[in-house]
Amino acid sequence: MVNKLFEQELQVINVGLSSFAESIQQTGGKSLQLDWRPPASGDRGIGMKLALRVNDPQVEAANRTAHERFLSAQPILMGVDAARNAIPNLGERTLLHAGPPIEWSRMCGPMQGAMIGAILYEGWAKDPESARDLAAGGGLHFAPCHHFGAVGPMSGVISPSMPVWIVKNQDHGNLSFSNLNEGLGKVLRFGANDASVLERLQWMGAVLGPAMNAALRQLGGVELRPIIAQALHMGDECHNRNAAASSLLFKRLTPALLKTDLPQSDLARVLEFIAGNDHFFLNISMACCKAMLDAGHGVAGSTLVTAMARNGVEFGVRMSGTGDAWFTAPAPMVAGLFFPGYSPSDAAPDLGDSAITETAGIGGFAMGAAPAIVQFVGGTPQDAIAYTREMYHITMGVNGGFTLPPLNFDAAPAGIDARKVVDTGIAPVINTGIAHKDAGVGQVGAGITRAPLACFEQAIANS
Amino acid sequence: MVNKLFEQELQVINVGLSSFAESIQQTGGKSLQLDWRPPASGDRGIGMKLALRVNDPQVEAANRTAHERFLSAQPILMGVDAARNAIPNLGERTLLHAGPPIEWSRMCGPMQGAMIGAILYEGWAKDPESARDLAAGGGLHFAPCHHFGAVGPMSGVISPSMPVWIVKNQDHGNLSFSNLNEGLGKVLRFGANDASVLERLQWMGAVLGPAMNAALRQLGGVELRPIIAQALHMGDECHNRNAAASSLLFKRLTPALLKTDLPQSDLARVLEFIAGNDHFFLNISMACCKAMLDAGHGVAGSTLVTAMARNGVEFGVRMSGTGDAWFTAPAPMVAGLFFPGYSPSDAAPDLGDSAITETAGIGGFAMGAAPAIVQFVGGTPQDAIAYTREMYHITMGVNGGFTLPPLNFDAAPAGIDARKVVDTGIAPVINTGIAHKDAGVGQVGAGITRAPLACFEQAIANS
Repeated sequence: MVNKLFEQELQVINVGLSSFAESIQQTGGKSLQLDWRPPASGDRGIGMKLALRVNDPQVEAANRTAHERFLSAQPILMGVDAARNAIPNLGERTLLHAGPPIEWSRMCGPMQGAMIGAILYEGWAKDPESARDLAAGGGLHFAPCHHFGAVGPMSGVISPSMPVWIVKNQDHGNLSFSNLNEGLGKVLRFGANDASVLERLQWMGAVLGPAMNAALRQLGGVELRPIIAQALHMGDECHNRNAAASSLLFKRLTPALLKTDLPQSDLARVLEFIAGNDHFFLNISMACCKAMLDAGHGVAGSTLVTAMARNGVEFGVRMSGTGDAWFTAPAPMVAGLFFPGYSPSDAAPDLGDSAITETAGIGGFAMGAAPAIVQFVGGTPQDAIAYTREMYHITMGVNGGFTLPPLNFDAAPAGIDARKVVDTGIAPVINTGIAHKDAGVGQVGAGITRAPLACFEQAIANS
Repeated sequence: MVNKLFEQELQVINVGLSSFAESIQQTGGKSLQLDWRPPASGDRGIGMKLALRVNDPQVEAANRTAHERFLSAQPILMGVDAARNAIPNLGERTLLHAGPPIEWSRMCGPMQGAMIGAILYEGWAKDPESARDLAAGGGLHFAPCHHFGAVGPMSGVISPSMPVWIVKNQDHGNLSFSNLNEGLGKVLRFGANDASVLERLQWMGAVLGPAMNAALRQLGGVELRPIIAQALHMGDECHNRNAAASSLLFKRLTPALLKTDLPQSDLARVLEFIAGNDHFFLNISMACCKAMLDAGHGVAGSTLVTAMARNGVEFGVRMSGTGDAWFTAPAPMVAGLFFPGYSPSDAAPDLGDSAITETAGIGGFAMGAAPAIVQFVGGTPQDAIAYTREMYHITMGVNGGFTLPPLNFDAAPAGIDARKVVDTGIAPVINTGIAHKDAGVGQVGAGITRAPLACFEQAIANS
């Protein structure tokens, strides 16, 4: 037997320390290093909890319910109204922000800048200095968008007078909300708050919002999933690439806008504004995803991840079966491409509610459908396909309504199972814009990041 | 030596009759059948002519000139006017059609139907029967669109009163033209000619054309190559898939339309018509390609293919160095997907000037950028990429302005060299709609076909 072993070519699979495999390779032998880590980052307590949750019939049943509610959602873009009218229980002097809860003093630069802008926009202070004093003085209520069914990109600030998109999930009846996209450059969501930013916000409240609302009423609402499905066939992944979806929405809205009684001059500016903003659909995509995921939230025992969101300091995760709890870890940095003149040292940590798109199975999860996005976030089209393929390992299933042409029209991975994340150690991939760490500078790049595993481990530990 | 040969594993490459290779394989040996055919379909005369043209310094120099003129073209969409005003030397009582020259009696069903429609539209006859008599009686002049710098999809009929797009190649100064896309269903280009078809044509002449012209004058023209470049990053190949390009054009035209003095009711119908037609850009894409290729036409000695066009009976090819000559072969049938209720027995042979897109390096040549198109024309996204890769073997170079994301942003193959087609036996791939063989039924499917090799062999024989 031993002789036979020495006659044959050596074939070794090594688990654990890779130096064993390497020493065989150095002597000309073949060895394969198994890519394996113990689940739950080796934490025995969480590992035990995970073992109890895997194949637990109650968890499986809860997940089927949550996943089905999530997938059967039919989000309709209903209209636009001021946040104070649209969002139930939004108190006055309340300012919503992206990510998990955070107090003023700990907010990152862009979020503080956006808050100051929102205070000026509301007329609660007459200049940035007194706005800052007001914010620091405790006279305002800060809360996550997610606590009010809302989502916002980057700092995600929503104040009571701002217009918000209203999305209704026709299937489950739940509502979701998002602010309107301001375009690129000096914009509130990156913390800019000068006169040009405030003027644009005033115009959005006075003209753009009511125009959108009139067009949507004219149309009786716009079903959002078909637009996303079509955009996925046109090279969008509907997080950082919304060129097709924005165009498709523009084509839907324009004829309806012409049937409203909007003055022709307003009409022209509204259409130019939308036509000039390839990210116009982003906030709507986010509200659509939020409406889908909220339908699957709150199912006792379910390990469906229903929110991933970042406030620029912490990354937070919510899970269906753990209700209002947030499981947080420090927000990661984003690896990517920087605009000319900027470098990683300029970047704020990962920021914004836009990871709701990945949570719902688009964005980074559907990157394989959007090869052109790598010119923006880095990598190759093959990387983009590989990210999508990897995400099938941590999702409960697929969304048959969202198919991906470059993957032979496979349905997109959809519905993150926190158990699978902890078990495999595969962290959800997120493609995202990168904000400058200082208020008001704006976007400095875009790239790829991963949700911190610690968030999912805590979620399982508390399940 | 012989012993050594028998000891080793047998490795055979076989050229010619495949049965030699197969008999080795049957006995368990390894053999590779070389995929090789003699050039020029084995015709010695053409083969000799080809041998003289390959590496001929004069041909090489001519091709460099032609290819450079083709690639440096900057087609601008200038406006819309009636064909009689826009197209130089278009006589009255002249009807243009797709493909190489053909007399009335030999025209296919859809083309005869479209001619009858055009005669009724012009008011030259009062009913289809007398229109047919007029056409058959010799009182009209029929000529290829290509003879007047024009192109038209399917039957490609252009009559003097019809509005046509006017494209100017800013680099070379040449003009090209195309009719306006009517949408799908019962339309003239498929041979329909009833009242609804004629009414739509009247409206296009009276309202749509002038509106487009006004918007384009407002914009000072629209550069077309950037739109195609962007659409190639959004899953179009700009022949059978123009969803993105049509949307991008719509976004450009709409704000400009609002600045014209068009009545709001006309404006609404114009915008609804364009928004509802994902093929609206097709005719413009074709005129853009025609403008690019005409710039490279007429260079003595050049083997650059400057037109591929089909009249439903014959497939015709023109080459830069052979001037006005057409090299024709019977139009092939199209293999593809048929709409419900239709089968290959319903199909007309390959029809239309739209293969000008492939001639210019988009359409089938850029299919790799448009994975979603296979749901329309058949095959898989991998097939689409393989078609594009194959076409690099028969083109003079690439178009750096048109990059293809799924192929790692490789530049699209561009500029067919008739020598390479004859030498390799690789026929240009064309993706195309399939017309019903009877007039007026419309589109019955879409698929893939190949330009007949015989056309290119004749071109080389006459070079």
